[in-house]
Order: sequence, then structure tokens, then C-alpha cells
Amino acid sequence: MIDNHIDDEFNLAYMRRAIELAKKGTGAVNPNPLVGAVIVKAGRIIGEGYHVRYGELHAERAAFASLADPAEAEGAVMYVTLEPCCHFGKQPPCVDAIIEHKIRKVYCGSDDPNAMVAGKGFRRLRDAGIEVYTHCLKDECDALNDIFFKYIIAKKPYVTMKYAMTMDGRIATHIGASKWITGEASRAYVMELRNRHKGIMAGIGTVLADDPMLTCRIENGIDRDTDNVRNPIRIICDSKLRIPEDSNIVQTAVEIETIVATTPDGAADTAKCDRLREKSVSIIETDSTDGNVDLGQLMDILGGKGIDGILLEGGGELNYSMVSEGLVDEACVFIAPKIFGGEGKYSPVSGTGVDVPADAHMFRLEEVRRFDEDVMLRYKKV
Amino acid sequence: MIDNHIDDEFNLAYMRRAIELAKKGTGAVNPNPLVGAVIVKAGRIIGEGYHVRYGELHAERAAFASLADPAEAEGAVMYVTLEPCCHFGKQPPCVDAIIEHKIRKVYCGSDDPNAMVAGKGFRRLRDAGIEVYTHCLKDECDALNDIFFKYIIAKKPYVTMKYAMTMDGRIATHIGASKWITGEASRAYVMELRNRHKGIMAGIGTVLADDPMLTCRIENGIDRDTDNVRNPIRIICDSKLRIPEDSNIVQTAVEIETIVATTPDGAADTAKCDRLREKSVSIIETDSTDGNVDLGQLMDILGGKGIDGILLEGGGELNYSMVSEGLVDEACVFIAPKIFGGEGKYSPVSGTGVDVPADAHMFRLEEVRRFDEDVMLRYKKV
Repeated sequence: MIDNHIDDEFNLAYMRRAIELAKKGTGAVNPNPLVGAVIVKAGRIIGEGYHVRYGELHAERAAFASLADPAEAEGAVMYVTLEPCCHFGKQPPCVDAIIEHKIRKVYCGSDDPNAMVAGKGFRRLRDAGIEVYTHCLKDECDALNDIFFKYIIAKKPYVTMKYAMTMDGRIATHIGASKWITGEASRAYVMELRNRHKGIMAGIGTVLADDPMLTCRIENGIDRDTDNVRNPIRIICDSKLRIPEDSNIVQTAVEIETIVATTPDGAADTAKCDRLREKSVSIIETDSTDGNVDLGQLMDILGGKGIDGILLEGGGELNYSMVSEGLVDEACVFIAPKIFGGEGKYSPVSGTGVDVPADAHMFRLEEVRRFDEDVMLRYKKV
Repeated sequence: MIDNHIDDEFNLAYMRRAIELAKKGTGAVNPNPLVGAVIVKAGRIIGEGYHVRYGELHAERAAFASLADPAEAEGAVMYVTLEPCCHFGKQPPCVDAIIEHKIRKVYCGSDDPNAMVAGKGFRRLRDAGIEVYTHCLKDECDALNDIFFKYIIAKKPYVTMKYAMTMDGRIATHIGASKWITGEASRAYVMELRNRHKGIMAGIGTVLADDPMLTCRIENGIDRDTDNVRNPIRIICDSKLRIPEDSNIVQTAVEIETIVATTPDGAADTAKCDRLREKSVSIIETDSTDGNVDLGQLMDILGGKGIDGILLEGGGELNYSMVSEGLVDEACVFIAPKIFGGEGKYSPVSGTGVDVPADAHMFRLEEVRRFDEDVMLRYKKV
């Protein structure tokens, strides 16, 4: 007998299982949300599922599909991390499946802020005589979908700024050497961050200095039971179209989606634009803001292309522009237990800067996490 | 009946009480160690004490003095955070008092590395037929006396470098504004750090820029049941003797001990030296190292003056010199949830800097502590 109290230990355990399932879709469902679902009858899990990949079954239907016999669902309880959808998208509405399978009771974690759902899913279930309990482990469920919640409302990507620095705030030594600041555990987690975001963004300065690949290398040491790893779409801010045609990024653009964002000034080199396009690089032209790419406009364009989340791995200039325009939603700051010293050219955020502390760009500390000898501080925009 | 096992819950509780008592001497016992002692009989604390102030009773004798009747100690158990002393200093040896009072059993936390004690205290007690158990909550007991342990062996001060920075590693905005980086809780803790160290050190740059007092302001919000608060001895590194005679520090030197460390170049201005001395400023002359105060030599001189611990609140230059000469034992890094940006003049550690990450000055993370919205990372030198 399952208690009706949301925080009953059994309810929490089943919802935790649903959360665990939801996470398996990381990196593959965007711009859909991560969702997990569990079906319980007579104190036993009889079915479970999650949204595995964009375009495929939603979690609730995946759970029904896992049943030995669909008739088993009659009178069962469902735990689902997000309000079930009630509209037609790539898939038919999940509320219909729940009603058809004669589920007796539903425990739910997050509300769906999607204007097409937003409480309507719950109402449809209740109208069908199903008991519905909401906000079961809401915070944990909400944390699954920071990206989705922002994107569905703002239609702009959720931006996570990531940088690694020494305990004296340096991202490189005074001569620009930066391999490595942090240890292996931190760097492995950055690969998870790259997997979680549909796009990765850097400035042309980083490309010219390091000729990086900006791919997602999840390999040894990370145990994954899904094969959802994919490379994020690479977005390079390059106002003057300086990107070398023989750079690693351009050379691999045919396999890994790559966008160069530039200004009318950069786009004026139509011959180079054509050559880049031939190499499968997409070029986005925005207005010029003081000679730079208009980042707000770029976010709108990227949102329009279905890029719901971006991991910003910029240098100091790009990071400052993004922060000062209010475009950074979250910051993951890795701090290594070492001191470089030296005059301060290589700082994680540079640009113009604020004049007085009262004008600082404020964040709220969300998480402190240790990766071996490093610490990661995770912040959200205030 | 108290169990002999060191980690028996009663033993741990009594030792924790002894640790709590020891801390009450913070700021007043230097260069002696912080020590607390508890006397237990028939499952009841019958006496307790701690080293309250330099020159006064040691913890063990203070605990005996607290007994309603000294004869009560016969057959009792003593918990003491540090190996009892067996030599005459300002006070007669504590082992004698323990033996005279017929204590049956002693639980001890830290070993005393002082060459005059170093195991001899334990031996004397055992020779007298007392059961002795060592290393009870050793780590916690050791943590009380980082300063003492270094000083007693090296005869040089234990140096704690403290700085407060934004999450992008800035100690001021690009125009030098720095009030405030961190919140009240962090700043209150800095006052505790100032209280814990016998000396506080800053560079002349800080004096010229901020005209600080560098005093210990422990006040509202901090509950203390002792009146041990005192100002640390102020030590200003000032190679060219540029300190203004009307600065707050010089003006208050008659009340608060103040040392200006300079080079032969600075000391050549004998008239200014005389005027400073008239205002109660002590002047220490060291050799010149590339025009700067020889910091290693300065540490030896300060150690010779009984300064066992220094809180380093330097600017980037002084911090780097201290770090690169291996003189920093501990670092307390406060990180505020805000971003300043700007070109990197105001970094916590600057100077020459290392060329490659492999040459970084390495630390070991010891503690992560939250002060409201700020985080403090505490490191020790590797």
C-alpha cells in the first residue's frame, strides 16, 4: 500500500529512480526536456522508461512500452519527473496514454512551464478521475531541466560559462601557458558539461591561440550505460572572420556541426565565406556592436535553430561581453590548488570591467563540489 | 566506567570538550600552544581548564585549580589536547602536577614536537604508573596548534596568506575600488584570523592606497566569553621607507605595536627613522634583495622577537614574493559571488609569476567553508 503523502519514503525512492532514468537522456533529447517515469503496482516496479532521444518516445510511453503486458498498468501508480504533456508534438500527448492505461494515481515532480502544457496536463488527468500529486522532489526534478525551462520560455539558449583557474584567479601563466590548470577529474566533468549542452561557444582568440577541437571526449573513467555521447555544435565568435581555414575546427566541420558568427565587416569577405561554407561551416551574420558580434541577436538566432543550451568556454573578452549583456545563466568555476602569479593578462573575465563593487555582476552560489584536489563552484545568475 | 578504547564515544566527547576549552586561549597564549584539559571521575567532569594567557597557568594546572577539593583528582582520568610538559618554563612541569594529584589515566591528543618535551612527558607519566593513551582526536588537536608546531621547530612565524577575491579572481575593480568584495560573515572571520595571529603583515602599497588600521575589530555578532581580543603587531614591508608619518598606522603606533621593515636604502634616511621611532614605530633593517626587504631574513628576525604567526594581507607583489620564497604556510582564499571583469591589474598574487603550469606553487586543499554567500577555501603549502 503506497501512502498518499508525497514525502513518504516509498514515493521518494520511486521518484528518485525516475530522476536517475531521466538523466540517461542527457545530451540526446535537446531541445526536449529530460524526463523519467516509473510504474509501480503492489509495491513493485512493473515498468520504467525515459526520453531517450529527440523524436523518440516520451518517458511515460517508454514506461508503458516496457510492461510485460499493457493491461498490468490498470490501477497502478506512475511517478514522472515532469508534468505529462497534453499536446501533439513529435509524439502524441502522454496524458492520453496514462488515461488509456487506466493508471490510478500519478506523482509528479516539475511543472511544465511550456505554455501549451502549464497545468493543463494535470487538469486532463484529474478530469479523467486520476489522483494527481505534484511537486514530489520538485527541486531535484527541476534541476534536470534548467536548460529546457529557460529555452521553452525565452526561446534563447541557456548559457553556462565554464572556466578553470588557479587559486590566484589565473587561466594561464603570464606567457599564456595553460595546460593544465585543473586535474583529470575536473576535465572529465567538463566533458560531461559539453555533452549536456547542445552548443559550445568560444572566441576567435581561443581558436588562434590553441587551435582546439572543442569536442566531447567522454572516455575512460566515465561509466555510461547509454551511447548518448555526441559532440556539441561549435560556435565561434569571429567578428573579422579571422578563423584559419586550416584550423582543426574548420577541417572537421564536415563531421561536427560548426557555426562561425561574424559581423557585416567579417561577412564582407565573401570569398572566404564561400570557402568556409564549402567546408561545411555555417556562417551567421549579426549586426555589429562596437565592431563585435551582437551577442543578444546571436542568442536569438541560435535559439531559433533549436540550440537550447550553450557551454561558454570563452577567453576573458568574450566571457565579459556575455556576462555584461546578462546572457550568462550559470557559471561553473573550477579552482586548482596552485598559484601562478604574474601580471594579470590571463584572467577568466576581462573586458571593460565595472568601476565599483556595487556595480558587480551578481551570482548566487548553488553548489560546491570537489574534484580530487580541485573545487568547482557553481553559480546561477541573480 | 570509562572504556580504554581511544575512540569510545565518552572519550571523544571529553576530548572535544578539552578542544573547545583550548580554543578560548586564541590570541592570548602566543607563542605558547593552545591547550585544554578536562578531569573526569565516575562519569562526571569534576574539573576543567585551559591555558588562558601567556605566562599564566598551563591547562592541566588550571584544571586542577578548578577542583572543589584537590584530593578529588585521585584516581580520576585526565583528557588533555597536548602532551603535558616536563620542563620548567614560565610554569613548573605539568607532569609533576598530574603525578602529585594521583591521576590514574591520561588521554592525550597531540604530541609535543618541542625538543624539550617530545615523548618525555608521556614517559615520565608512565614511569609513575599512570596509564597513557595518545592520539585521541589527534587531527583536531593538531589543528589547534599549526602556528605553535611550526614555530617551535623552525623558530620562524607560521604565515597565513589571506585574500578576498571575486569569482573572476579580482581583489579590486579596474580602478582599484575594493570596498567590499566579501560579505559581513567573511569579514568577521577575518577579524578572528587577525586575533589568532600575533602579527599582521602588509606592503607599503596597501598603506599608501588604503591608509588602513590593520587592527582586530571583533565586535557585534561574534559571541566570545573571554576578553582575549588584542590587536596583532603590525608589520609593514617598506623598502624605501615611504610610509607617511601622518598615516593611521604611524599615528596609532604608540598604542598598537608597529614594525616597519626596510632595506639599507630606506634606513639611510636616519632623520625619518628617528621621527618614526619617536612615534613608537620599531624599524627593522634587513639586507636588500633586488631592492626589496629580504623576507627570509625578516622572518628569522620576527621569529626571534617571539612573533610565532603572521596573517599576510599583502597586495599582489608582496604575496608573490612571500609565496615564491616558500614562506607562506597556509592560504585562506575568500571568494565572493560576483564578477568585476576589467583588465587584470588587481590580482591577489602578481609579481613575476611562473612560466609554465608545471612550475606553479602548489598547495593542498584543507577546508571548504561557506560564509553566507561567500566561500572560503583553505589551503596548506605542499
